[in-house]
Formats: sequence, structure tokens, C-alpha cells
Amino acid sequence: MIDKSKKGYTVIIANGEFPIHKRPKECIKNASYTICLDGALKLTLKNNITPNIVIGDGDSISEMLKEDYAHLLHLFTDQDTNDLTKAINYCIQKGLRKIKIVAATGKREDHTLGNISLLLEYMHKVEVEMITDYGIFTPIVSTTKFESITGQQVSIFNIDNSPVTSHNLKYPLKNLVLDNLWKGTLNESMGEYFTIETKGRTLVYRTFEVKTK
Amino acid sequence: MIDKSKKGYTVIIANGEFPIHKRPKECIKNASYTICLDGALKLTLKNNITPNIVIGDGDSISEMLKEDYAHLLHLFTDQDTNDLTKAINYCIQKGLRKIKIVAATGKREDHTLGNISLLLEYMHKVEVEMITDYGIFTPIVSTTKFESITGQQVSIFNIDNSPVTSHNLKYPLKNLVLDNLWKGTLNESMGEYFTIETKGRTLVYRTFEVKTK
Repeated sequence: MIDKSKKGYTVIIANGEFPIHKRPKECIKNASYTICLDGALKLTLKNNITPNIVIGDGDSISEMLKEDYAHLLHLFTDQDTNDLTKAINYCIQKGLRKIKIVAATGKREDHTLGNISLLLEYMHKVEVEMITDYGIFTPIVSTTKFESITGQQVSIFNIDNSPVTSHNLKYPLKNLVLDNLWKGTLNESMGEYFTIETKGRTLVYRTFEVKTK
Repeated sequence: MIDKSKKGYTVIIANGEFPIHKRPKECIKNASYTICLDGALKLTLKNNITPNIVIGDGDSISEMLKEDYAHLLHLFTDQDTNDLTKAINYCIQKGLRKIKIVAATGKREDHTLGNISLLLEYMHKVEVEMITDYGIFTPIVSTTKFESITGQQVSIFNIDNSPVTSHNLKYPLKNLVLDNLWKGTLNESMGEYFTIETKGRTLVYRTFEVKTK
């Protein structure tokens, strides 16, 4: 059954490298509802996780798994969207509006870049974050305050060339246009929170690792 | 000795995941000159490669390695550039103008995004490509013809919102503005070459893997 309670969230297990860090693993464990992309089913099962549903185009799944998990399989033949987008669209359709994506990086770098940048599309329709083995990506489009810890590594990616201003980061941004992806990287939080001011499509990345020295 | 001959190239071994695919491994093996970032020295040696020089800020290297390889170590204390940029600047200074970067993806995703996007800065000064475990990133800023093979997966990332046109790709781009990173991904070459027309800063990614069916 789908739990749409405000407390719960849906986790989508994507086709990248399967998580090894405890944070994405806990994220899967604590989810109210688990969606697995078809290409990730084999590893998901191997990690002793049975998803509530498997979504994809059926291209990336063995015939044996297709038979054994036919009762969980929702295949969409539409070739215009990737499997991650198919899963997000399914969530929207079912009213699942709080989503965490794991296993969406690693492997082919174009998939990694594509998946990360898709957060900036999804955020208009759902509340979404991506949890990797190293940190969390959060898409924003207006001024946002983030919970943090002193020394947490922070990177900011803006794709609209809208000026960005930061508060409580070690290297302050003051109405800065980040016209290449590296320009807002390798910053650091000064405390329990920091704020990013912008009106453009922006990804904020916070690592789990804290710099101590 | 530094071989500046036209045939040769310099390889930079960066701080990401050490290559396991034969293509980046061959790229290291066949280089005329090998630069290793300090954080990558341990794994480079473990892979039986002795670099010609080790470059970095000294933050990411053990005291023991520092002593043992003092004769190869070039440390720059400048905190305004990352170690990869320090290595590129060293190449420029030494007249090494043909550069291949390996081990620059995997691990922290903000480093991956930063390193990939830095190609678009480096290209103005040197001839540079990035070889990963999955494919090759080539930065361009004008119309460019690429060698290819039928079925090769191709992704195009433009960060200037300049229109992009493609020739000989399965899903043709016609003066298309790619205003998010996913928009030019997951294309496919139709033969021995393809061409990308643009006037903006663009990364072209070709996978080693070929789609066959």
C-alpha cells in the first residue's frame, strides 16, 4: 500500500552505482515506499531490499527477473524519457510528492550529469533530493536556508547565470554569476546553517564529510 | 626529460577514482610525460607507475611519501586553484600543450562536475581531453568533426545556451538551445564520424561502449 503521509517519503533506486555509504543505505531503509528502476533490480534484491514497484522500459532487466517479479513490474515503452523520469512521473501520478533519489551517480558520466541536472526539472513538481555516497544535492530556485554543520563542504551550481549570494559560507559569494560549473565549488559551511540567495535554477551540494583542521 | 615532440602527450593522473578500464590505462602507459596529483601518488605507485613529477599543495600526501618522493615533488601553496589546475598551469609553463586527464571522475560529485567543466577553461590554452572508465570528454567552442563508430553513445553539454546543430547523430539537433545539462544527452553516432556545430562552450562525450541492436 502507498503511504502518502507527510512524514513518509519515496525512495527511487536508480541505475548508477549501488550505494555503499550508510546515509543512502539508511535513506532506502527508512523510506515509506521504494521504487526501483528496472536496471537496478538485480543489485537491489542482492542487497536484501524488495522494492514496492519496479519501473522502466524493460530494456535493462533479464527475462528471468521479469518473470519472477512480474507482479511488481510497471513497464513504460515511451522512449522520450529516461527511466528516472518515468519513475518521477509515476510518483506525481500517485500523489507521492516527497522523493529521495539514490544510486543515480557513478558509472557513465553523461548519465551522472543528466541525472543530477534533472533535479532542476523535477523540483517544479515534487520535493526532491539526491543522496549519493558522498553527499546530498538539493535543487532550489529561490533564496533557501540549509541546515549544516561547521566544516561541511558545500558546492553551488547555477545553470541560469543568475547572480548568487551566500551567507555563512567560508568563501562568500556576493552577487556572483557562476557561468561555469566549477565556479561555485569547494566552499565550506561556517556553522549550523547557511543561506543561498538566488532567483535562478541552482543545485546545492553538501558533503557528509566535514573538514577538520 | 620532457619530450615535447608533436607525437607525444602528457597525462595527468587526478584525484578521482583510479582507472580500471583499459582505455585510460593505455592512455597512462603511452604518455610521453606523466604528471600525478599528490593525492593520487599512493594509488599510482600501487599500479606500478612512477610519475615524472608530482604536483599539488601537499595537503593530500603522507609524510612518508613526501620524503621518499621528494625528488619528484613540486608543491604550490596557492589555495586559489585546485591541484588539477596547478598541473595544467605547470604544463603551460613547460610548453606541454597536448594533455590527457585521467582519474578525474568518481568519488565526490562536486569534484567530478568541477573537473569536467574545467576542460572548458583549459581548452583555450592547451589541447586537452579527459579519458574516464566509460568514455572521452572533448571541449569545443566552434564547429568540430569527431571520429566515431556506428552505435557509439554521444552526449553534448553546452553551458552558454548557444544553439547546437548536429550531423550524423541518431537524434539530430537543429539549432537547439541546451539550457539544462540533460538536454543533449543519450544520443548515438550513425557512423565513422559526426559533427557538432556551435559557437558556445560545449563538451562532447563519447562512450567506449557501442550500442548493438
